[in-house]
Amino acid sequence: MRISLETMKNELERILLRVGFDKKRATLCASIFTENSLVGVASHGLNRFPLFIDYIRQGYVNPTACAQLSSSHGAWEQYDGQLGPGPLNAYDCTQRCMEITRMHGIGCVGLCNTNHWMRGGYFGWMAAEAGFALISWTNTKPNMPPWGGTDCHVGNNPLVIAVPREKGPVVLDMAMTQFSIGRMETASQAAEDLPIDGGYDVEGNLTRNPTAILSTNRPLPLGYWKGSGLAILLDLLAALVSGGLTTHQIGQREIEHGVSQVFIGIDISQAACLTMVNRVVDQLIADLRTATLVEKDGMILYPGERALRTRRENLEKGIPVDPAIWNQVISIP
Amino acid sequence: MRISLETMKNELERILLRVGFDKKRATLCASIFTENSLVGVASHGLNRFPLFIDYIRQGYVNPTACAQLSSSHGAWEQYDGQLGPGPLNAYDCTQRCMEITRMHGIGCVGLCNTNHWMRGGYFGWMAAEAGFALISWTNTKPNMPPWGGTDCHVGNNPLVIAVPREKGPVVLDMAMTQFSIGRMETASQAAEDLPIDGGYDVEGNLTRNPTAILSTNRPLPLGYWKGSGLAILLDLLAALVSGGLTTHQIGQREIEHGVSQVFIGIDISQAACLTMVNRVVDQLIADLRTATLVEKDGMILYPGERALRTRRENLEKGIPVDPAIWNQVISIP
Repeated sequence: MRISLETMKNELERILLRVGFDKKRATLCASIFTENSLVGVASHGLNRFPLFIDYIRQGYVNPTACAQLSSSHGAWEQYDGQLGPGPLNAYDCTQRCMEITRMHGIGCVGLCNTNHWMRGGYFGWMAAEAGFALISWTNTKPNMPPWGGTDCHVGNNPLVIAVPREKGPVVLDMAMTQFSIGRMETASQAAEDLPIDGGYDVEGNLTRNPTAILSTNRPLPLGYWKGSGLAILLDLLAALVSGGLTTHQIGQREIEHGVSQVFIGIDISQAACLTMVNRVVDQLIADLRTATLVEKDGMILYPGERALRTRRENLEKGIPVDPAIWNQVISIP
Repeated sequence: MRISLETMKNELERILLRVGFDKKRATLCASIFTENSLVGVASHGLNRFPLFIDYIRQGYVNPTACAQLSSSHGAWEQYDGQLGPGPLNAYDCTQRCMEITRMHGIGCVGLCNTNHWMRGGYFGWMAAEAGFALISWTNTKPNMPPWGGTDCHVGNNPLVIAVPREKGPVVLDMAMTQFSIGRMETASQAAEDLPIDGGYDVEGNLTRNPTAILSTNRPLPLGYWKGSGLAILLDLLAALVSGGLTTHQIGQREIEHGVSQVFIGIDISQAACLTMVNRVVDQLIADLRTATLVEKDGMILYPGERALRTRRENLEKGIPVDPAIWNQVISIP
């Protein structure tokens, strides 16, 4: 089942208006959720929408709260998200980060007390399409064991790095678990194995079975100790740069809310015209394409390429949706 | 065999003076190589010193060249390393990054046309001990296949993230390969297997045999496609932020020289007194220690903790050296 972009956006907007968003913010928030489904990340698009509405109705997310400046240190500013909608807080802080970056060459916004931004890559694309490089990450509740441990004390803290390019930006969007929770849930529902080990089973052995991993709650950090270490540093910096909570502190709340995020922009157009930037990026991609392939009919993709292809296809054919979830969404009271 | 810190430093300094370093720069460069061995990274300390001298004598590294400002964009500056000694260029740019950061809250130095910085963690410790957070990375020659390919088109581009702390900073220093080249060479020389798969053998199967991996030149990116993607983004940003070469372009030279580096500092003391920073970091580490252990006598280490322990032990007992390498160094003509 496929739904047109307009249909999905209008439907989500209608529901957001009903739970207390004003018109402008409902439109933006609906378009972020729709875009995430459009590029193939339904787990942080349509499929997550019912939970998002649920958190609003339970009072965890305040639909009218906006990020407020709490302190300024030149090219680095701190905002308090006031537990507003995560995608809108992240959108506003990406916007503000670009303004600071334009003034100072590099700029940083730390955002505390915010909520799940859904798909971090959205903000990478947003900055890159405006000509900026962006390095951004969020912390999360504890959902990954530290290396050497079996219970979750570390977040999988998704990291986004984006670089502009005329033919479509290069955007990395990755969680510190080998597989994102959303990816494992999707595989588990489809009763499919993961392509490589993604965590531990109840006996403590590495496994490709997503259901087993979700039941032990022991996903594998990417690169074993390396992903665990990177997640710890991203968490520390998120808390210190935003003045907000660490993963450990978020874990003391009944559900994940009040997370910390960082947005660092670099206005590379101040050193090189965008033609030169395009040339550097295009040359790198062209060189990747010359690699000898593992599989004859394989292909080397650059980060963000799959999203771009999926986006084009879905713009033309409509956005694939799970009919059960679509019906759940349109019947949200 | 163990050598005292002073003996090693004096010996390296003596040789550096002989190959054209002035007194001040010889002292600093010798102390960086010595420190790297002191914290247990001999592969980028004493063991790499003969090659470093060789590159100077072959003219790849100019001992008297210093990084020069090439352009300034507010809180972001670009330096040309003029093919000077990598550790000294990185030292000077870390220093300059901290000055800019003090002025603007966040600061960035891009360094092009430089050489191997040896152990990136050195500069993380340097910034963190001065109270700054640092995010820094370098690109390298192509030494890792992109995901889906079998030949090297991507660098393993080590990434450093450092956060200050009174009892010893938290410092991540990791290459994008599951194991650094130095680590695999050490294991290969000792005829020891790696603890987990580190790359591919000649049949294209994953293996723990470091000799097999070094012979196929197919090390595994950390987290498979994820490390490959992260390495591509770090390379692009290194080239664009510094105005320097990408990994692909470095690969066109006969040996690795003229690499690109980025140093981003955040003066977290402008938002939180260091007592508060210590509290945040100490709490996170204390929480990690409460994790249930995989192995009863195991321990959860934070990034940088092993280096700190090794450093203390070696300061007391002397720095362990391979006698053959020590003799090779002291007899450098």
